[in-house]
Amino acid sequence: MESIQNFDDIVSRQCSVTNRKRVAVVCPADSHTEYVVGRCLKEGIADFLLVCAGECKPEFERLRSMYEGHVEVYLEPTPDDAAYKAVDLVREGQAAVLMKGTLNTDNLLRAILNKEHGLLEPGRVLSHITIAQIPSYRKLIVFSDAAVVPRPTLDQFDAILRYTVSASRHMGVSRPNVALINCTEKVNEKFPHTICYEELKKRAEAGEYGDVCLGGPMDVKTACDADSGSIKGITSPVVGNADVLIFPNIESGNVFYKTITLFAKAETAGILCGTTVPVVVASRADSCESKYYSLALACTGILG
Amino acid sequence: MESIQNFDDIVSRQCSVTNRKRVAVVCPADSHTEYVVGRCLKEGIADFLLVCAGECKPEFERLRSMYEGHVEVYLEPTPDDAAYKAVDLVREGQAAVLMKGTLNTDNLLRAILNKEHGLLEPGRVLSHITIAQIPSYRKLIVFSDAAVVPRPTLDQFDAILRYTVSASRHMGVSRPNVALINCTEKVNEKFPHTICYEELKKRAEAGEYGDVCLGGPMDVKTACDADSGSIKGITSPVVGNADVLIFPNIESGNVFYKTITLFAKAETAGILCGTTVPVVVASRADSCESKYYSLALACTGILG
Repeated sequence: MESIQNFDDIVSRQCSVTNRKRVAVVCPADSHTEYVVGRCLKEGIADFLLVCAGECKPEFERLRSMYEGHVEVYLEPTPDDAAYKAVDLVREGQAAVLMKGTLNTDNLLRAILNKEHGLLEPGRVLSHITIAQIPSYRKLIVFSDAAVVPRPTLDQFDAILRYTVSASRHMGVSRPNVALINCTEKVNEKFPHTICYEELKKRAEAGEYGDVCLGGPMDVKTACDADSGSIKGITSPVVGNADVLIFPNIESGNVFYKTITLFAKAETAGILCGTTVPVVVASRADSCESKYYSLALACTGILG
Repeated sequence: MESIQNFDDIVSRQCSVTNRKRVAVVCPADSHTEYVVGRCLKEGIADFLLVCAGECKPEFERLRSMYEGHVEVYLEPTPDDAAYKAVDLVREGQAAVLMKGTLNTDNLLRAILNKEHGLLEPGRVLSHITIAQIPSYRKLIVFSDAAVVPRPTLDQFDAILRYTVSASRHMGVSRPNVALINCTEKVNEKFPHTICYEELKKRAEAGEYGDVCLGGPMDVKTACDADSGSIKGITSPVVGNADVLIFPNIESGNVFYKTITLFAKAETAGILCGTTVPVVVASRADSCESKYYSLALACTGILG
């Protein structure tokens, strides 16, 4: 498999796929979502089931006749009904990807997490992973969790590690370097995540995660800048060369996400994992590009 | 007072001061600290008491004869002794600023926090505040806490707010916009910092912090980017225009610090506050420039 160096590679890979995926979009009536749907149809990288709430915008009827056979439109009374309908379409095998439009993330999550009719198998951990293209870093970086798990337990860290490492491998990194993020290098029981990190490192050494290198606790600069590591005398192969960042809590993951997009002009693609199909739940303030890349990513199966 | 728009303004202000401050430096024998001492002497913006451990490098004897009357050298057996000696020099009124060189921050903190002979008055909260110059943001931004307080209590948030707002005012911002950072806009008792934020906002409305505008909970992007705020329909004057960011925990503050310096080419100046004099405890991986700006900042009294 060819390695993926940047977001254009993700899109190229998806464009080369002959069997397009069908995407169920819940409440697609906002300008960003319309942009993504229109662009993906034009490029032929996905088909769409548009599940509207309240009314169907004329734009969607136009798309249906313009791209006959590639667009279907469903009408539901409320956003909650639309969410449940879209989840049903996935469960029936009609759609292979789910995408959030204008409704509140919590409302979509309620339908996804429904015990009898939802998309999470018992025992699976729901998490969010992001792939970022930061102009001042030489490769794509995968990180988690910026959006779903507030304070990961050991089991949740374990699942998050498996999801992110799998994504990195799917992008062509044979031995991902994983940085376990903290504000210092110290392991301290007052910071329970550092104790979890020690256990994750033991499991990695025992081969539980396959060919992978875990380092940390370390800070973001040590993880992504070799000079910072050498000043501190840290010699892990992860230092300055991280492929994956695991954050200790949702606030620090979210601060990383927002800071790289705002101040370092990063593009991101983010997705829910742990569900039976990938779910795109881009933030309202994400760029159109970011939402487009997220959908392309979901369709590649990189996170499958 | 003229407002301070960037780090050059801080240095200019300090260069115009006729009564130079004396800085006690603990273990100055590393290249970054030597650079800062040499540059400040050359520019005439500070005098130095160099408290060495073990041996005195010939470089320091050279500086003492080159800048007669502006440099004194002390020799102590160990880094711990050097830390206690430097704290004593401050307590005796010999030095108005304390600066960390090569020793471990914890060892310096032990001397600073000593109940009988330290630099923290009873009841004061020790915290760390940073001023950042981010090329992609149009003004200086003050934030806390990236280095000292792990999970601020309400009292600690209150102190952190007072320190950061005071710094922003000293920089010429008459009504600082303070963003209380979280990953979402929701107040939720599962996230105790959001409950503290509500109380801080009540106190601000009651006038406890003077002329100031508090907004939040909100994420970093909403705080510093007007478009993100308008997409989310948030109308606080803080949105897109923050002067101060208050972080919910040390991990998220530290992630912001490291991410802006590494990926967004920010320069930072950081300082301990709550102590009887400002203390410069720059991270080992900080740039020479960052350490120089931190010292200039400490000498201006902006954080006094």
